[in-house]
Amino acid sequence: MLSTMQDVPLTVTRILVHGALVHGDAKVTTWTGDGEPHRRTFREVGDRSSQLAHALRDELGVTADERVATLMWNNSDHLEAYLAIPAMGAILHTLNLRLPPEQLAWIVRHAADRVVIVNGTLLPLLAPLLPHLDSVEHVVVSGPGDRSVLEGCRPRVHEYDELIAGRPTEGYDWPELDERQAAALCYTSGTTGEPKGVLYSHRSIYLHAMEVNAAASFGLTPAEICLPVVPMFHVNAWGLPYAAFMAGTSLLMPDRFLQPAPLAAMIASERPTVTAGVPTIWQGLLAELDANQQDVSSLHTVISGGSACPPSLMKAFEERHGLRLIQAWGMTETSPLGSVARPPAGVSEEEAWPYRVSQGRLPASVEFRLAGPGGGFLPWDGTSAGELEVRGPWIAGSYYGGAADEPFRPEDKFSPDGWLRTGDVGTMTPDGFLTLTDRAKDVIKSGGEWISSVELENHLMAHPEVAEAAVVAVPDEKWGERPLAAVVLKNGSAVEYVALRSFLGERVARWQLPERWVLIPSVPKTSVGKFDKKVLRKQYADGELDVTVLG
Amino acid sequence: MLSTMQDVPLTVTRILVHGALVHGDAKVTTWTGDGEPHRRTFREVGDRSSQLAHALRDELGVTADERVATLMWNNSDHLEAYLAIPAMGAILHTLNLRLPPEQLAWIVRHAADRVVIVNGTLLPLLAPLLPHLDSVEHVVVSGPGDRSVLEGCRPRVHEYDELIAGRPTEGYDWPELDERQAAALCYTSGTTGEPKGVLYSHRSIYLHAMEVNAAASFGLTPAEICLPVVPMFHVNAWGLPYAAFMAGTSLLMPDRFLQPAPLAAMIASERPTVTAGVPTIWQGLLAELDANQQDVSSLHTVISGGSACPPSLMKAFEERHGLRLIQAWGMTETSPLGSVARPPAGVSEEEAWPYRVSQGRLPASVEFRLAGPGGGFLPWDGTSAGELEVRGPWIAGSYYGGAADEPFRPEDKFSPDGWLRTGDVGTMTPDGFLTLTDRAKDVIKSGGEWISSVELENHLMAHPEVAEAAVVAVPDEKWGERPLAAVVLKNGSAVEYVALRSFLGERVARWQLPERWVLIPSVPKTSVGKFDKKVLRKQYADGELDVTVLG
Repeated sequence: MLSTMQDVPLTVTRILVHGALVHGDAKVTTWTGDGEPHRRTFREVGDRSSQLAHALRDELGVTADERVATLMWNNSDHLEAYLAIPAMGAILHTLNLRLPPEQLAWIVRHAADRVVIVNGTLLPLLAPLLPHLDSVEHVVVSGPGDRSVLEGCRPRVHEYDELIAGRPTEGYDWPELDERQAAALCYTSGTTGEPKGVLYSHRSIYLHAMEVNAAASFGLTPAEICLPVVPMFHVNAWGLPYAAFMAGTSLLMPDRFLQPAPLAAMIASERPTVTAGVPTIWQGLLAELDANQQDVSSLHTVISGGSACPPSLMKAFEERHGLRLIQAWGMTETSPLGSVARPPAGVSEEEAWPYRVSQGRLPASVEFRLAGPGGGFLPWDGTSAGELEVRGPWIAGSYYGGAADEPFRPEDKFSPDGWLRTGDVGTMTPDGFLTLTDRAKDVIKSGGEWISSVELENHLMAHPEVAEAAVVAVPDEKWGERPLAAVVLKNGSAVEYVALRSFLGERVARWQLPERWVLIPSVPKTSVGKFDKKVLRKQYADGELDVTVLG
Repeated sequence: MLSTMQDVPLTVTRILVHGALVHGDAKVTTWTGDGEPHRRTFREVGDRSSQLAHALRDELGVTADERVATLMWNNSDHLEAYLAIPAMGAILHTLNLRLPPEQLAWIVRHAADRVVIVNGTLLPLLAPLLPHLDSVEHVVVSGPGDRSVLEGCRPRVHEYDELIAGRPTEGYDWPELDERQAAALCYTSGTTGEPKGVLYSHRSIYLHAMEVNAAASFGLTPAEICLPVVPMFHVNAWGLPYAAFMAGTSLLMPDRFLQPAPLAAMIASERPTVTAGVPTIWQGLLAELDANQQDVSSLHTVISGGSACPPSLMKAFEERHGLRLIQAWGMTETSPLGSVARPPAGVSEEEAWPYRVSQGRLPASVEFRLAGPGGGFLPWDGTSAGELEVRGPWIAGSYYGGAADEPFRPEDKFSPDGWLRTGDVGTMTPDGFLTLTDRAKDVIKSGGEWISSVELENHLMAHPEVAEAAVVAVPDEKWGERPLAAVVLKNGSAVEYVALRSFLGERVARWQLPERWVLIPSVPKTSVGKFDKKVLRKQYADGELDVTVLG
């Protein structure tokens, strides 16, 4: 039996109309470096979003389903694009300006973006790509920056403010949308293979914003001021712009001023209460505050996500600057809010610590399960490690464009019953806290059990004579895979493999101990400094390593 | 273009499974009067919900869509019914034990309830009705109370604990549900005509629970303890049981101990942090605390709804006991969360007052509009008064059973474009705060303008010689309707109509002044003590009133 409730869709349009009307006086402040910050109200953002929609439809001919890309920093023009493009029925495609240019071009071509809205300061990145971007018919330039690099380019060039000026600020006839319709597109940066597009729906964005605003998550209200340091080209700035506009929370936008000194200055001057970013940002801010103390006391919630936050960083912030970092976990495919590491009620500061350094606890709309090496699902006992699979209304169930033109196997990313396979390995506590230990590709599948390479590495690197150590899986006839320990000794050390193995043996189970050992001069690294285990595995396969097998 | 997100329904099943698993240690404490409180964990509630579903299906033969009624106080067995019945695909029908018995019987017959779960203490109410409830095949009795009144009754009688005992605590094969499927049924108490059933969906309950948990609404988290004083037979206790189970918020259930003294005792002893109820409850608690001070300092959020909270009550609570009441507005048809009166950011205590005594500000998922007497919609200017119409995913769009067997005209309750017509008249501020002034049936529609009868009454009753006054609309050839002032003078007063009219004339616009006046010995009242204006209108129509018309 169907209910008698109204059938009202959950859409970005509703967020736009509500925020601009009910919270019209809330502020969007964009940092400008040394100048006076740029200030707009939600009402003005709403008016300008209408104007932008008119311009895109009436002047640039954008129709439903077409992709409008943004190559922009966090600022109020970008927020207008966030609201107007989905609300008019088109698809907002945020471009990650940190990607290598050729990958950026590949993504624009794959998405067939028809319009690119770009910050003037990013034209040096975009201009050289334009000859290779056949789908792009219009470039709309916002904010400061030298336009001369666009001279002679094929697409028509528009100034953002001129394009929208004079168009109606209200009365845009926002279409009635199906909440499952696509609203925004974001590509994973894809460490392996080509980038993959995640196509968020109006429904997923709306529900995700409601969850962000839950008191147990980030708790945005009209009384808060939110500083999204995480870029708007990273998973929609973790959904914060939508959540803030929904809740009437004023926004402080850092634009391109993401260096520690301007961040500290804007916090001291504009007094945000909630902020969110990756650990690297907080590491930089910590060093800045240590060197030049500033008043950051307005912040009561500092969210750290994107990668695991070192506990030492959390402790340093708390002890030296009174700021409590809260970890959260997610990925592009999870919109990204998957879990938030708020400790359970009633635990002491000491007891809270293991919860705070975990990846956090899942909300009601997100389901987790741990797929074990044997094929079944593992108990939530705090120790059984499995690959994390995720289900929920804001979790991806496939990629944009499907598998046809993708060099990946969908079954690696989605289970037959539709859950997302994260590629992360971890454990769950009985009360729903996730701890990630490894990437699935970094665990060693030995006789139906998993051995954590990261755990072995951490133990080895704790040995006083070891400078670095990498552990990789190598084929083994009997066990399927076994660990190979590749060790870099400190200068002058002559410690023997058996001593290292004994050291490990005091710390992990016997069956996890590597038989195969090799000394290497240094661990191969990727361009961003991570261990490049592919290289080690290939060297082993090619017989280039001088491996000793302990009996 | 459809998105690539997973299509996961929003269901009560998800709330049940999540709360029992991730927040298994959260508590449901049921007050027992003088005895030790009864305590269960969310895990136990989850286990017992599975057992209840097994019992209802396997033993009582309940199938999808069938209505299972509850006639119960707020306690943990009732919470199990809240979770299990919708999750198994059946419909939870909460019966209002405060209704006149004949209305209760009418509702059970209209809903065709097959099972009634009843608290033993309420058997004296149910037993005499059973001969008239043909659809009811099973009565399940929970908790203390004399069972002898059921002897010889037609339906089969079961003991709740015996019925569920020994059945599987897990592995109930919860069906995959469409989120738009009906989950719960609640009848309006219907001051006019027969009661009308509102059929909530899984989707509406889920989204409503998310909104309750928003930081800007009631902000439930695992760190809170919630005391729903509002009964679970009143609009699902304002959604608090679902919201709490979703958020992992421990519940303190008052059972039948709603008198001021036990309420104060349970607050002092169990230390809830959030509570919600009607002004009458808070009035009683205030008197109790004034007489016997108790420690209520654990409460940081006290929600008042159901009817307007007198500002004097809010002030008294704050000044004398440090408790800040927060008004919220809603009705059975709105699930009920429509608006919450949290003042905007940055206003002073003094400036906050008009916001706090308003009905509150609407969240993003709820839309308001004011229908004017002329047919159009009115601006949000803080003064234009219109009938409030509401739209949203947890707002009713029709009634259960439709109009066929209902003596009401659907067009009176729902607009042609599907909005709920609340029957309340009020104003909106530009920043989305609602103030209700009248029931639509109590405003006088005079020449395309509305005159508030409540405002005229309040002014008249402020006159030192007036004991009571009621103002009703009477037909007028020229203006459509005009106000009739029916006045009860204080003993011995001989004040004249012209003097009263001058007194009014200093307070309202001239065109609002009544021409027709009548002295009456007392204002007719309903059984709950409200002015019964129907009677006055009928007396006027029948020529029974000695009306003076002033020139």
